[in-house]
Order: sequence, then structure tokens, then C-alpha cells
Amino acid sequence: MAGEGDDVKLLGSVMSPFAVRVRMALHAKGVSYEYLEQDLFHKGDLLLASNPVHNKVPVLIHAGRPVCESLAIVEYVNEVWADGASLLPADPYGRAVARFWAAYVDDKLFPAWLGILRAATEEDRAEKLDAALAVIGLMEDALAQCSDGKDFFAGDSVGYLDLALGCNLFWFKALREMFGVTLIDAGRTPGLAAWAERFEQTEAGKEVAPPMKSMVEHARKLRAMAGNN
Amino acid sequence: MAGEGDDVKLLGSVMSPFAVRVRMALHAKGVSYEYLEQDLFHKGDLLLASNPVHNKVPVLIHAGRPVCESLAIVEYVNEVWADGASLLPADPYGRAVARFWAAYVDDKLFPAWLGILRAATEEDRAEKLDAALAVIGLMEDALAQCSDGKDFFAGDSVGYLDLALGCNLFWFKALREMFGVTLIDAGRTPGLAAWAERFEQTEAGKEVAPPMKSMVEHARKLRAMAGNN
Repeated sequence: MAGEGDDVKLLGSVMSPFAVRVRMALHAKGVSYEYLEQDLFHKGDLLLASNPVHNKVPVLIHAGRPVCESLAIVEYVNEVWADGASLLPADPYGRAVARFWAAYVDDKLFPAWLGILRAATEEDRAEKLDAALAVIGLMEDALAQCSDGKDFFAGDSVGYLDLALGCNLFWFKALREMFGVTLIDAGRTPGLAAWAERFEQTEAGKEVAPPMKSMVEHARKLRAMAGNN
Repeated sequence: MAGEGDDVKLLGSVMSPFAVRVRMALHAKGVSYEYLEQDLFHKGDLLLASNPVHNKVPVLIHAGRPVCESLAIVEYVNEVWADGASLLPADPYGRAVARFWAAYVDDKLFPAWLGILRAATEEDRAEKLDAALAVIGLMEDALAQCSDGKDFFAGDSVGYLDLALGCNLFWFKALREMFGVTLIDAGRTPGLAAWAERFEQTEAGKEVAPPMKSMVEHARKLRAMAGNN
């Protein structure tokens, strides 16, 4: 467990899966930190100064120095607080596979579920759902390949790829609440369904997920701003 | 220098900056490899089988196992062939900064210059050029921050971020040849201009760049396929 003296701050938003990913990593590694929730509709000076390139959360500020980009932050957390189980596999091939699929989550899965949220019509939403299910189907295969029958992607404890994917789970629940769509279920993706249940019982998974009500409100606000309802 | 016995193959295309990036990394680390140029208009069975998720180059096949996604491959190369200078800085903060800017190159700089190549009209191209120059302006700042007066982004030798950016340089030349646009020049971005000259003199930079003529032909073919000329 890292001490307070480490001076760790996280600029995040409960709505951002990328910020939630970093919080999950900090919890998984047992790092104490000060959490500073950001208003993304009115960004504050600290956020703008800490991430002048993208003006986005998450930003980890460690001993006064900002680190940005959620996957880079997770690697940083794993390297700086190196005690305990590593978030990345020990062998380079396992690490490469984890990094490959984490990039897949951000490049394919994130825009796929965001498409469902942003869809303007029912028809559009049905199309976006089909696309997202195809993306998730490949993650089901990835889980079988990577976990080799163990509980998590890289073995017996939560690691890099679990965090990369797991931070999206609470949005999947919000999409079900809002539109009745199911992205992971025991019929179509039994491996991921069982993995998600396990993940949500971990220290990382259960401490960080935002309340459903505030998420659905936030999501409706985003849709209203985009002219949808 | 890695031996032949390492059984390293690279599926690439001379036109792909991401494949060139990996070749540069292998050269920088002195790894011997068999290079297999791929026809991206008629993808072969080995490529489709090795990267079934994206069907894209580059794929590094090491001892029969495929590794995909260029930045993940560069990390893998750096970890497996750990002799000699590391491609990543020794301290976690330096690594996080390198990973941040490498993501910036792929997320912002690559689409920015591709926009110039794909522009349908002169007006569109002028707009895309302005956007690309803004992106490159931030890379000029990044170089000043990261290199601290040294020759390369992370010090005295070519590293991860040098490769991430440097693999785009030959496309910048092709854009100048095709459209008369200049992305890096001594007036506006003196740091990057001097860096690019140095980079192109390195083992990694000078061995891999494809011939300009074939690039311009390839680029014109891409534009013709997109209905431009």
C-alpha cells in the first residue's frame, strides 16, 4: 500500500471509462490517491494546465508531474508501484497480447458502444448494436485464448487487459437500462459473462463504478446536447 | 545482434508507416529478420491468418507466434532483444511521456497528414495542411520538452518516440513531392527539422525508407481508388 506521502492525485470523471480504468488500476495496486472529480462541461484550470494537449481526463498527477492517456497511466502505475502482482504478464509475448487487445478495446469496442448511445433512431441503434456484438464476439475469443481457463485475462488476478475492458462494464449496464440492449450475456458470450461477474467482485471492480442513476442522467444530457432524446 | 536462429519474420508494406516503424525498431536493436512485403490490395493467407482481427500489416512473427499493432510490437522487440540501449527511457515518467506522444502521433498526426493526401480539392487540402501544421507544432514543443537539448526525443540515441514519429517522415517527403506542401521546415519547426536530419542519418532511419517514386505511384493509386486525381 502506497503512503500518502506519494502525493498522488487523479483528475477524473465518474462518466469516463478511461478515468475509471485508472482508478481501478490504482485500487488494484493498492495506491492511495486523492480523487478530483472534474466537471467536463466546464473544465477547470488544473485540468487544462495538466493536459494542455487534449484537455481530457484522466490525468494522474504524481509528485506534481502530470501523466496522461489512460493506458500509459496504467503502465506508469504498474511500473512505479511495482510491489505485489504486476498488472502485465511476466513474459513479453503475454504483454504484447495484452497491449494488442487493450488497443482493440479502445479503437473498436469503445466507439462501438458509444455508437449505441449516440444513435439517433431505433434502426440506427439496432445496426450499432449488431456492430458492437461482433466486436464483443472477438473479445470472447480473446478471453478464451488469453486466460487459458483462469479467472482473468492474464491469470489469477486482475491485470492490464481486465482493467482495459472492465472499465466499460458499467456503461454496458447503463445502455441496458436506457435502451434494453445487452452486450454481454451468458448465452452468446458465456466466458465474458462469467468474467464480468468475477471482475465486479474484485477490489478494483466494485469500488469505482459510479451510481447508475447519475450515469443515465449524464448520458441523457449528452444525447440531448447532440439533439437526440 | 540477434542470430538467424531467432526465426523472426516481418509482414510489412513499404507504404505503411506502421510497418516501417517496426522495421526501424528491428534495425535500431540490430535484430536480423526476414522481411515479407505484402500486397495490401490482394492480402495473402499468411497475413490473414496472422492478424485475423485487423488483417493489417505490420505483423511480427517470432518463433511462429504473431505479434500485431506497431507500438505493441516495438515494446515487444525492446523487451525480447534487451541487449544494448533500450528504446524506452529508464524511468517510468520518461516512458509515460514517450507513450503519450507516440499515441498522439498515431491518433492525431497520422490522420492529419492522411487528410492532406486524401483531400479532394485544393481548398480542402489547404485546410488539412493548416490542421496538420497545428499538430506538428505541438510535436515541436514535445521535442524541446523531451530531448532536453539532446539529439533525440529520449536522449543520445533513437528511441520509441523517435521511431513513432520518424516512420512518418518519408510520407512527408512524398506529400511535398506530390502537392508542394512542407510539414517540417527549419523556419517554423527548427527543432524537428534538425531532428529529422539526424534521424535520417541513423541506422534505423536510412535503411528502411522506401523509394520516393514507388511511394508517389502508390499514393496516386490510393487517390484514384478514392475517386480523386
